[in-house]
Amino acid sequence: MISKEKIQKEIVRTVNAVKTENPMAGSITNTVTINFVANAQLAVGGSAAMVYLPDEADFLAKAGGALYINVGTLLPIYEETLPRTAKILHENKRPWVLDPVAVGIGQLRTQLLSTFKKYKPTVIRGNASEIIALAGLWSLEGGSDKSNVRGVDSTDSVATARNAAIALAKWIGGAVAVSGKEDLITDGSIVITSYGGSHFFEKITGSGCSLGGVVAVYLTSASPLISALTASAIYNLAGSRTEKRVDSPASFQVAFLDELYKASPEDIAANPFEIEEIER
Amino acid sequence: MISKEKIQKEIVRTVNAVKTENPMAGSITNTVTINFVANAQLAVGGSAAMVYLPDEADFLAKAGGALYINVGTLLPIYEETLPRTAKILHENKRPWVLDPVAVGIGQLRTQLLSTFKKYKPTVIRGNASEIIALAGLWSLEGGSDKSNVRGVDSTDSVATARNAAIALAKWIGGAVAVSGKEDLITDGSIVITSYGGSHFFEKITGSGCSLGGVVAVYLTSASPLISALTASAIYNLAGSRTEKRVDSPASFQVAFLDELYKASPEDIAANPFEIEEIER
Amino acid sequence: MISKEKIQKEIVRTVNAVKTENPMAGSITNTVTINFVANAQLAVGGSAAMVYLPDEADFLAKAGGALYINVGTLLPIYEETLPRTAKILHENKRPWVLDPVAVGIGQLRTQLLSTFKKYKPTVIRGNASEIIALAGLWSLEGGSDKSNVRGVDSTDSVATARNAAIALAKWIGGAVAVSGKEDLITDGSIVITSYGGSHFFEKITGSGCSLGGVVAVYLTSASPLISALTASAIYNLAGSRTEKRVDSPASFQVAFLDELYKASPEDIAANPFEIEEIER
Repeated sequence: MISKEKIQKEIVRTVNAVKTENPMAGSITNTVTINFVANAQLAVGGSAAMVYLPDEADFLAKAGGALYINVGTLLPIYEETLPRTAKILHENKRPWVLDPVAVGIGQLRTQLLSTFKKYKPTVIRGNASEIIALAGLWSLEGGSDKSNVRGVDSTDSVATARNAAIALAKWIGGAVAVSGKEDLITDGSIVITSYGGSHFFEKITGSGCSLGGVVAVYLTSASPLISALTASAIYNLAGSRTEKRVDSPASFQVAFLDELYKASPEDIAANPFEIEEIER
Repeated sequence: MISKEKIQKEIVRTVNAVKTENPMAGSITNTVTINFVANAQLAVGGSAAMVYLPDEADFLAKAGGALYINVGTLLPIYEETLPRTAKILHENKRPWVLDPVAVGIGQLRTQLLSTFKKYKPTVIRGNASEIIALAGLWSLEGGSDKSNVRGVDSTDSVATARNAAIALAKWIGGAVAVSGKEDLITDGSIVITSYGGSHFFEKITGSGCSLGGVVAVYLTSASPLISALTASAIYNLAGSRTEKRVDSPASFQVAFLDELYKASPEDIAANPFEIEEIER
Repeated sequence: MISKEKIQKEIVRTVNAVKTENPMAGSITNTVTINFVANAQLAVGGSAAMVYLPDEADFLAKAGGALYINVGTLLPIYEETLPRTAKILHENKRPWVLDPVAVGIGQLRTQLLSTFKKYKPTVIRGNASEIIALAGLWSLEGGSDKSNVRGVDSTDSVATARNAAIALAKWIGGAVAVSGKEDLITDGSIVITSYGGSHFFEKITGSGCSLGGVVAVYLTSASPLISALTASAIYNLAGSRTEKRVDSPASFQVAFLDELYKASPEDIAANPFEIEEIER
């Protein structure tokens, strides 16, 4: 099993690489938190570009280092843009992050998320209910037909999504990050638990979406597992730090982005996590 | 006439219920202030979900506790989404809030707002010019064909919208809230004036839109009149408090959301208001 | 050549006029920074209205004092809205600002920006790469077919865009503002360099877009050159001031809008700039 030290070295390298190279991670994401996603990507050292149209997404899929696809607020054009972009990403072996927001609501969302099964995102990030529902939609182990997704909120605990996360990670050959009180990150062979964060993550919009956008930034220079873990670690670190400074959600939102910007590679790597091998 | 004490008890009950139950209020709203609306709904204890597509709005209309429809920045798909959603809300007797932003600008806006007459929103919230123009569009008393709406700004005083507000409230059998220096709230039989707020409400975007979104949150557990009043009261309270702490609009925006989060049920109920019976 | 003193008097007059008259400047702009654009327009004393639909843009083009068109996140409806609006603005001699965000990415963007050549925006604002690429697209001097635009980022220095900016300004008979470390503003006969700003402008989204929106506000009461310079001056002043107060990008964003609101006409006029006559 990979050692904690080796993972920490990789985290430091990844954070530094992004701060030095200012890599582009394009996004197709929802209108509610689109500004927060972009600013979080900038705060960690990345560069952002958001698009809606098919050929612009093509361009980003080919030119950008990685892409972030969030199905939060679907527009009619997504029916054309998303499958085409996912196909290009898959065929060109480009890394991308899928955020299956509110899986189960609406016909287009279901159709798009079903299609993504064959285009295999590099990283999937969601809350427990979304991960379980996506595994269900893809007929994988640990999934459920009965979605407990309620808008953007999870009604399941992270632990209950463990099998679904592992099955999804194996299927895509990448990594899955389940956000919650603790974050679970898996590549299908090990499970990492990342600690920290803040109860304010649920009192603001965009903590989950922007985490997905930041995973895409790290994915421009690290493996799926390390990208997902690095993003979770900086979120958990910045979340804990911010919570000590503020007592309300809007102040939290501002101070949290500031902490993302200020977090050092070493502190991010030192944020508590545990590794566990998956028994077969 | 209902007593002040009874109304205050109802406000306390409503605020507590929302904080305890974290009810879902979906929205179809403009892209300018969509983030502010969602974060205001979260700050008072609600849960938010924003959609554009017809079948997703159907889902929210049936599943959510209440819906918020704001016609601020219309997209082509709204032609399909909004009448269908309003019809479902009406037929299923689901509570919803209409924010007739910029009524009078553009053909689709006029068409949609005309259609809503028969689907009778539960609460209508707008500034004085919007309320007068909507009553005019619906051929009700106090309305005017000549709109003084200027973009999102009102050029009429709240008092001049009194008759239009009463007529609209009677027509829908719900409540109307007119936002301005003081807020006027009426169910067609009494008129309540809620005091407080801040001059910064006009120097930022979203104070009106987010107030509408918060009315929808309270509508999940209170009557139209109490929902509109509770939302106005927390806005006026938080606005006054914030204005004492800051001297500029962007700081105001952050601190205001914080004050929404911190306001206690008792303080919200104690925010100054006056009740007046409507003479017939 | 126009004297520094005369320009400074014009800046003071313009800032005061906007604060007094609260002029409306409508926008068709991207969803990423739409909220920031609107709040910046309000902070300097203007009024904002954002639209997507063709006939609503018609309305604003005819009713508003000036319009801001930013092609950041194109939606399908823009194919209809933007050429029609630009044509109306041109035919009615209405002032408008073009922000050619990410010129070169995608077929619709190229088509729209090509069309705008004949409708001659009053002011063009962009970073160096965008200005060079737009001049290239319009086959003007100083332009280049090879775009160095990378998403929303510039990879060229302001100085390298000088000839392109002058050629564009001459073609439109208005002014061009190139944003960068220093800002270059030209009407084709003189070049003004405006100093100040902050390195945080590149660590947040919307500093460029909102600058364009603020140019449109000033354009309601000043010449293209003075509008572009006044907007650059208040941005450079507020940027420098804010940078002294904060150490992180999200705090910067809030404090910067506050400084826009607080900046006095005299201080804006006193922000350092240099004038240079263009040799023929």
